[in-house]
Amino acid sequence: MQENTAIPIISQSKNQTVGPVFKFGGTSMGSIERIEHVADLCLKLKPSAIVVSAMSGETNRLISLANKILERIDVPEYDMLVASGEQVSVSLLSLALRKRGIAPMPMLAPTAGILTDAQFSRANILQVKGEAIKEALDKGLLPVIAGFQGVTEDGQLTSLGRGGSDTSAVAIAAGIGAKECIIYTDVDGVFTTDPRICSAARIIRKINYEEMLEMASQGSKVLHIRSVQLAAKWGIRLVVKNTFSNDEGTEMSTIDEPIEGEIVSGIAASQNEAWIQATCANTPQFNLSNVFDLLAKKGINVDIINQGEHNSSLKISFTITQTDSNLAMETLKKEFPNISLTLREDVAKISIVGVGMRTHAGVAARMFKTLANNGIEILLVTTSEIKVGCLILRDKVSLAVNALHEEFIPKT
Amino acid sequence: MQENTAIPIISQSKNQTVGPVFKFGGTSMGSIERIEHVADLCLKLKPSAIVVSAMSGETNRLISLANKILERIDVPEYDMLVASGEQVSVSLLSLALRKRGIAPMPMLAPTAGILTDAQFSRANILQVKGEAIKEALDKGLLPVIAGFQGVTEDGQLTSLGRGGSDTSAVAIAAGIGAKECIIYTDVDGVFTTDPRICSAARIIRKINYEEMLEMASQGSKVLHIRSVQLAAKWGIRLVVKNTFSNDEGTEMSTIDEPIEGEIVSGIAASQNEAWIQATCANTPQFNLSNVFDLLAKKGINVDIINQGEHNSSLKISFTITQTDSNLAMETLKKEFPNISLTLREDVAKISIVGVGMRTHAGVAARMFKTLANNGIEILLVTTSEIKVGCLILRDKVSLAVNALHEEFIPKT
Repeated sequence: MQENTAIPIISQSKNQTVGPVFKFGGTSMGSIERIEHVADLCLKLKPSAIVVSAMSGETNRLISLANKILERIDVPEYDMLVASGEQVSVSLLSLALRKRGIAPMPMLAPTAGILTDAQFSRANILQVKGEAIKEALDKGLLPVIAGFQGVTEDGQLTSLGRGGSDTSAVAIAAGIGAKECIIYTDVDGVFTTDPRICSAARIIRKINYEEMLEMASQGSKVLHIRSVQLAAKWGIRLVVKNTFSNDEGTEMSTIDEPIEGEIVSGIAASQNEAWIQATCANTPQFNLSNVFDLLAKKGINVDIINQGEHNSSLKISFTITQTDSNLAMETLKKEFPNISLTLREDVAKISIVGVGMRTHAGVAARMFKTLANNGIEILLVTTSEIKVGCLILRDKVSLAVNALHEEFIPKT
Repeated sequence: MQENTAIPIISQSKNQTVGPVFKFGGTSMGSIERIEHVADLCLKLKPSAIVVSAMSGETNRLISLANKILERIDVPEYDMLVASGEQVSVSLLSLALRKRGIAPMPMLAPTAGILTDAQFSRANILQVKGEAIKEALDKGLLPVIAGFQGVTEDGQLTSLGRGGSDTSAVAIAAGIGAKECIIYTDVDGVFTTDPRICSAARIIRKINYEEMLEMASQGSKVLHIRSVQLAAKWGIRLVVKNTFSNDEGTEMSTIDEPIEGEIVSGIAASQNEAWIQATCANTPQFNLSNVFDLLAKKGINVDIINQGEHNSSLKISFTITQTDSNLAMETLKKEFPNISLTLREDVAKISIVGVGMRTHAGVAARMFKTLANNGIEILLVTTSEIKVGCLILRDKVSLAVNALHEEFIPKT
């Protein structure tokens, strides 16, 4: 479920005295005991509004019910179904707040005014009409709002796709003029790399929005990409914290300098990768423009792209998420009957990310050397101003991440 | 959860060609297999709109989650919570219809325009704005609508209280100008009495609306009372059928004659009864008006009322549902410190119901004689034009029902 990267239009609020918006994820809402804990935290820290995800496991339970009937996610009933998970969370947290003497205002997307387009299962927020939420605030109520859901102009419920609650929270913060949005989750913050792969991984205390975007899109699962884009656009201070610890967490920052003096802030590894190589002799229609237009129309996002020659035919090589690999293969075969295709699903992408790269030459070379020294073959390369990414064999991921962490991330 | 008996205002539709509204209860929606069966039935029988309850057990599961936090049902988050159950049903049935080539229009209360007052957990339908449903019909879509829920004018979700989906279905039928509403459930129809108590019980093929009201309010659980009132008011043909059999079911009729030549159509037994007897010496404020006004303000509905003298003090004797007995006792004690109260919860009410009584004298006498012949003491009596009810000891219910069935209901 790829996010449209267009930035939604948000109505800005005039009232600038609004406190932070808190967002609690599925694990934080995972049981009655945890919901009571979340209510205690809110009693103590007094957010202006709360956005919640479904209880962990609930969305999967609902989807598995649906899939027993029909595997369609592009229909309104799918969105209506999954939206019920957040509805339950909103209700239960509201009860827990009321028990503590806080008057809640439970709100779903239609009452909270979270307008989206009508792309079911992957809708984009167009606008958060903050008026209803602000009205609740004016009455001294604490809005408890369903994340992950929206409503079309003609009143149909939509869902934003997995992880969309982060985006809901930031969009709501923007909609009501809040300056801060705290994403409460089940980890202490954003790590320099995946701690399950690399035991030297540590929390990044401050990270630049652009770095965070690269980290998120490269497979670091802490935050939904769009939420980071929105927070950057609207100048909302975005913080990731652990619901169950007192760790200060990770703060996103607009500072465009290496924050802790480091060239590389983090190392991202994405294993959900597939690599397709295609050649197609004597077919003028087989060109970059047509191929990627075709894939885009199927909703397939392409990451690394490489163009070359093979026996005087054009050779196009690209990576996509493994989830899309079958669809991509079928689409290409259907359009180009003469095509020669190879699909490799034993690949992964390793990226080093840091705004410090802008001012430090030779970072890519150090990365390639580190990988070579460890006998890791580089299949494809992609770079941006603040990132170098390499496609490698998937069974080398752990070795690569640990070697790059050792090379680039100072021990504290 | 007592229903307000005021009849809601329904907007009548101009289009008179609308087919039947089907309503499926929790048992009918109880599993994926059953939902697929319901979809098959709809494919075959082509209703104009479908109203569904939550999957059986789901509402109880949600309420038990809520009760672990706070036992409050008069708050918006309670209604929002329980409404999620119907939302899941609507979604899953819509998927099953789509699988069969039917284009569904899944609708919740706000989009379907089911307006209620703001009495949370026991809201009353004020109006069904049929326009959105009719619009879906005009587009060739099959509306699948959440029962049991409504929306206040300011957009908050409400719930109608247990059994409210029947009322939703009839109100929606009225709102879109349907002439027929079929309530699909897990029994073959309305029985002459509870078949678990009396093996001679059989299906009533046609029953007068007034009889049905008496049967329903006297403890026959097949239909929600308000749905029968509404159907009678709007002249909607109401039928109860079994989702899982081909039985023709029970049809409500406006015919005001004994339909099958019988004086008594059915025998209702209600075991959720409590009997309170109160005296209060030297207290002028202790009178029928004050006592029942006091109880009404607490939402307690009183059934049989008896007034007498005890040692020159007023003695008030009345029955209520057992569920309300503690609240009634506390309320009376608080208001009348000198009150003398006895509460009996070992009682039940047996009623014989039939429009034939209007024209046949001596029916009550036959009932009393039958009970006396079986050694069953009558504690209180209540009568209406088409009903005689007796309060008896609860351990005599089975004996009484069988004896009265034998006396009044002809064998077929």
